Amino acid sequence: MVRALNFSAGPAALPLPVLERAQQEFVNFKGTGMSIMEMSHRGKHYDAVHSEAKQRLKQLMNVPDTHEILFLQGGASMQFSMVPLNFLKEGSTAGYILTGSWSEKALQEAERIGKTFIVASSKESKYRSIPSKSDWKDDSGLSYLHITSNNTIYGTQWHEFPETNAPLVADMSSDILSRPLDISKFALLYAGAQKNLGPSGVTVVIAHKEWTASHSNSLSKFLDYNTHLKTDSLYNTPPTFSIYMLGLVLEWAEEQGGTDGLATLNKEKAELLYDCIENSGGFYRGHAEKGSESHMNVTFNLPDQELEKDFLGKAANEGFIGLNGHRSIGGCRASIYNAVPLEAVEKLADFMKVYRKNHPSRSFSFQ
Amino acid sequence: MVRALNFSAGPAALPLPVLERAQQEFVNFKGTGMSIMEMSHRGKHYDAVHSEAKQRLKQLMNVPDTHEILFLQGGASMQFSMVPLNFLKEGSTAGYILTGSWSEKALQEAERIGKTFIVASSKESKYRSIPSKSDWKDDSGLSYLHITSNNTIYGTQWHEFPETNAPLVADMSSDILSRPLDISKFALLYAGAQKNLGPSGVTVVIAHKEWTASHSNSLSKFLDYNTHLKTDSLYNTPPTFSIYMLGLVLEWAEEQGGTDGLATLNKEKAELLYDCIENSGGFYRGHAEKGSESHMNVTFNLPDQELEKDFLGKAANEGFIGLNGHRSIGGCRASIYNAVPLEAVEKLADFMKVYRKNHPSRSFSFQ
Repeated sequence: MVRALNFSAGPAALPLPVLERAQQEFVNFKGTGMSIMEMSHRGKHYDAVHSEAKQRLKQLMNVPDTHEILFLQGGASMQFSMVPLNFLKEGSTAGYILTGSWSEKALQEAERIGKTFIVASSKESKYRSIPSKSDWKDDSGLSYLHITSNNTIYGTQWHEFPETNAPLVADMSSDILSRPLDISKFALLYAGAQKNLGPSGVTVVIAHKEWTASHSNSLSKFLDYNTHLKTDSLYNTPPTFSIYMLGLVLEWAEEQGGTDGLATLNKEKAELLYDCIENSGGFYRGHAEKGSESHMNVTFNLPDQELEKDFLGKAANEGFIGLNGHRSIGGCRASIYNAVPLEAVEKLADFMKVYRKNHPSRSFSFQ
Repeated sequence: MVRALNFSAGPAALPLPVLERAQQEFVNFKGTGMSIMEMSHRGKHYDAVHSEAKQRLKQLMNVPDTHEILFLQGGASMQFSMVPLNFLKEGSTAGYILTGSWSEKALQEAERIGKTFIVASSKESKYRSIPSKSDWKDDSGLSYLHITSNNTIYGTQWHEFPETNAPLVADMSSDILSRPLDISKFALLYAGAQKNLGPSGVTVVIAHKEWTASHSNSLSKFLDYNTHLKTDSLYNTPPTFSIYMLGLVLEWAEEQGGTDGLATLNKEKAELLYDCIENSGGFYRGHAEKGSESHMNVTFNLPDQELEKDFLGKAANEGFIGLNGHRSIGGCRASIYNAVPLEAVEKLADFMKVYRKNHPSRSFSFQ
């Protein structure tokens, strides 16, 4: 098999050894004569899978005992509603920092539920950067402050998390487990698994236990975090196979040196592409501003849309998958999550260099 | 490999040919060099999987054009909240018929949202039967009437669906696709996949389009059925691998003769066990009353708890998996969903007969 050069934004590439192991034990899990997906979520085999995945994530992300890990469903989109349903009470205000389309969607769901306040936004500059702390409005008195740690569509990322007066809630769907993190800074963070953690269908939530317990959702027991906190995410049938795959990905992440090892590798991969863009003499133009570039999604344009179409077509012919920009903004995007191998990124950088050489007279006319 | 004799209540047995096919193409889907779970949910490969699964379900369940099929997440438990959040408006009342623990949970979630009314209940008789229409209270003027078509814990099932004045909403998690059904009778039905349809992590919803469109959920766009109706269940990243598995299970169901073929087989399997119970001279006692017995979950007791424990222990030693009754009521339960082979049920019936012969002096002292 020739492995695809998969730069999809999510669902995204998974580590080949993980896929091969899952394949090997797919029909007959540990000699039981059953697939893991045929087993009761309250039986001993799945129980071991569930608690091992949790334990590995706790260690890898250095989750303190003040926080608890949950495995939910519905993706980040469900969290957009669950967060305000639990933490935005009548008479209080939730703060949002807008850094892209997903932040906007999170805000829109909160607006349906209660009072919101935009603490900062880079919308006017086409979401090319993460707003600096000096541009924030007053964040005191908020029930929480919501941010999006990495912006898949625009290719920007928070490289540090400023202190805030409010409990910090973060959507980390597209950069969880890509670098070391101080979890104690966050009241709650969440991530759909399908970028860095596994297949789609499971959402990881890491919640400050006391803060979460001091809130509730009167409208729905199912949509109350405490329901899942109290039941170790076994209130109802969890997405068992997705959590099994998550566990295998976490085992692989340990072998890569954990978040330190992964962060080093991710930086190296990102620099290969950003250097290629920067040294292209204006042929490629990165969307993100200096200092805000994502190490997960490298977004760029070519001098015009016709050339972009040609570039994407030729890249597809060469076996590069998923380089189209998000349908909402176009352009090009290389998603280089944890499981995208360095060799694939090197091949892409080489392809980009050759493509530029083949179009010597073209470049952006900067204004 | 010796295949396990899997009678789990869910996640439950899947057809072996389905597992083998998924294993074969797990790492390299159709020669793409990628797993199906690594692919964009907006790409052509997944698109074919998604629309084929939908088309197969439409044909198998004879879904009329008035209705639309959705693939959601969160299981039946999320539907318990979503249904009243969408259809139970201020000033109106939702009706519930209680036939077991899951009906009660559905009711409890609705009570958090609005006014409810218990149209009928078999709780006082330990949920041994489905209430007959003559025992219903007045069901006029309700915004909808919610029922649970099969009760996994108590082992009862609706064998026909009476006419009602209200839009009928059904939780079909544990008997969907087990028999032919007149979908036009239902305003909305839903089912977690992990019993008859595939692995856990995907919920099938079949909704009357006009009725659904005439309601909305002001609190959450994500929890509004119309959001998913308008986007062909691609509003956010769906659980792609679970939907892929669902598609394979549906293909297998076609090969079994569709719902007619499956219903015949399921009846045969159920009769094997119910006959064994009935002809045990009072050694086994079925929980469900005549006429309400489930063809999916056969629940029974032995004369005392000690003997039950011994029976379950010996059964486990013989390789029978998942025969323990639900932790809330104890006893024994054999779940014999579509994918449980006739041969496995025959082996269980044989085991039950031999076990009874080995305990000749014991029987229930009926009062």
